[in-house]
Amino acid sequence: MILTVTLNTALDITYRVPALRPHTSHRVTDVTERPGGKGLNVARVLAALGHEVTVTGFAGGATGRVVRDLLPSAIGDALLPVRGTTRRTVAVVDTRAGDTTRLDEPGPLVTPAEWSAFQEAYEDLVADADAVALCGSLPPGVPVGAYAGLVRTARAAGVPVLLDTSGEPLRRGVAARPDLVKPNADELAELTGSHEPLRATQDARRRGAQAVVASLGPEGLVAATPEGRWRAAPPARVHGNPTGAGDSVSAGLLSALVEGLPWPDRLARAVALSAATVLTRAAGEFDRPTYEQLVEHITVTGEATAA
Amino acid sequence: MILTVTLNTALDITYRVPALRPHTSHRVTDVTERPGGKGLNVARVLAALGHEVTVTGFAGGATGRVVRDLLPSAIGDALLPVRGTTRRTVAVVDTRAGDTTRLDEPGPLVTPAEWSAFQEAYEDLVADADAVALCGSLPPGVPVGAYAGLVRTARAAGVPVLLDTSGEPLRRGVAARPDLVKPNADELAELTGSHEPLRATQDARRRGAQAVVASLGPEGLVAATPEGRWRAAPPARVHGNPTGAGDSVSAGLLSALVEGLPWPDRLARAVALSAATVLTRAAGEFDRPTYEQLVEHITVTGEATAA
Repeated sequence: MILTVTLNTALDITYRVPALRPHTSHRVTDVTERPGGKGLNVARVLAALGHEVTVTGFAGGATGRVVRDLLPSAIGDALLPVRGTTRRTVAVVDTRAGDTTRLDEPGPLVTPAEWSAFQEAYEDLVADADAVALCGSLPPGVPVGAYAGLVRTARAAGVPVLLDTSGEPLRRGVAARPDLVKPNADELAELTGSHEPLRATQDARRRGAQAVVASLGPEGLVAATPEGRWRAAPPARVHGNPTGAGDSVSAGLLSALVEGLPWPDRLARAVALSAATVLTRAAGEFDRPTYEQLVEHITVTGEATAA
Repeated sequence: MILTVTLNTALDITYRVPALRPHTSHRVTDVTERPGGKGLNVARVLAALGHEVTVTGFAGGATGRVVRDLLPSAIGDALLPVRGTTRRTVAVVDTRAGDTTRLDEPGPLVTPAEWSAFQEAYEDLVADADAVALCGSLPPGVPVGAYAGLVRTARAAGVPVLLDTSGEPLRRGVAARPDLVKPNADELAELTGSHEPLRATQDARRRGAQAVVASLGPEGLVAATPEGRWRAAPPARVHGNPTGAGDSVSAGLLSALVEGLPWPDRLARAVALSAATVLTRAAGEFDRPTYEQLVEHITVTGEATAA
């Protein structure tokens, strides 16, 4: 079982309107709702790939109930209740302009008792996991060093752990020596101070991450690992909706890790899943024919470290 | 008991952001949720005035549950369940510009069986009511002549009925001879083709309404009734948020009708409540000290019809 952690789950609402004009009223022509937060997106992709997956984190209030109701039945629900209300995110898609305006609610305030209860539940879940993904932002009340502690718990249990967050939670989490971090270019630059991806991935390893896979958007991935350094890129640029592309990278890397595939195959899967996600309307989904066709045509260059 | 009908109930969500910029992401700094739809706003004002009030209409899905949970305990809940989901409205307040962008979801699709069930329940509720308010838009699936039928049911039971809607549902409803309609200037012009309020209120009476009270925004009300014609205006223009001002007019008129007050007093109460609502942040609320001070200073001019 792969465990994904989403401390700041969300209900992702998408409104489609012909044109968004500030200071006017709009009839929304199309409403969709999906469980959201990076770890829930990763879990949906893992489940679609046929992996057994369990999600944990917090869910509270009426919105938390909707998030749990919308979870696919193939996903194990180990979300913990909180007194606060799970946040909504509203994405307003302007169908004429083809772009999106986002409104993100703040997450629920997590109490010290709720955070303690989570840490205990997490330790039990990790004992049964083949791998763990720690994903996304921290809701108010959760200490900034939270991910560092969760990384240590996984490492103490001998379970590989991926960390995908940003800012200070990433900086502290990296110092706890996770098996893998997956920053995008901005997050990597903020962590290392370097805008040069090859140098920055190496620097992130020196800060504690055992492997670093940086996503460079349409140009693919760059990886610095104990086994070698690689770049992986799709055969052509894919146009579409980048939301969730990074979560599909995490799902690709984790699934291939659990299956024991070598790094070049892990990266090829991650790039193909990411591109196949750009072609869909929502995070946590991917276009399967595109994925299956693309995964055979990803260019992976680089070299393994001499054994 | 006063009965208010809201066929298209809503959860009114207000987001406050420092500045709304299309095609960017926003952290919402403040989220409020209130039960919405005109009839629920009218009911909240009536309850605050000390009247016994019951609400009916439809509520469905997770959003319908939240709407019911948020109803004040002083309001009787006779909402009927529907299989569809109650709509949300999102008002994004740009705190720098001081104005609002609205996103309104479509209402739930009401089935013929659900509409029949409502009509039966309504007939039972009307039997116990001192007055009825029929308020707002119709959700998909409810026939356009719905309000005409609901007006006839109330009249057959000898219960005074106020109608506050627009477009074709208003046109058809007026023909069923409601005791009172309360259009704003635009709705009245659409109904009658006249932009001259005095002429248009008389015309709306000829179409079937027994009394017509048109709201002219900050200029107050103009009334054409079997007992006479009046204008009522506040002593000075009130600046603020006009959302819900019309619903407070309905609550003022209905409460004063039930209390047996003469028309000039009904109009004074309606104008004062409306102005006291403009000073609050939300529909269904009013500033009580302002109301109590203003109600003594409303200018009502006009004349009673010779008996």
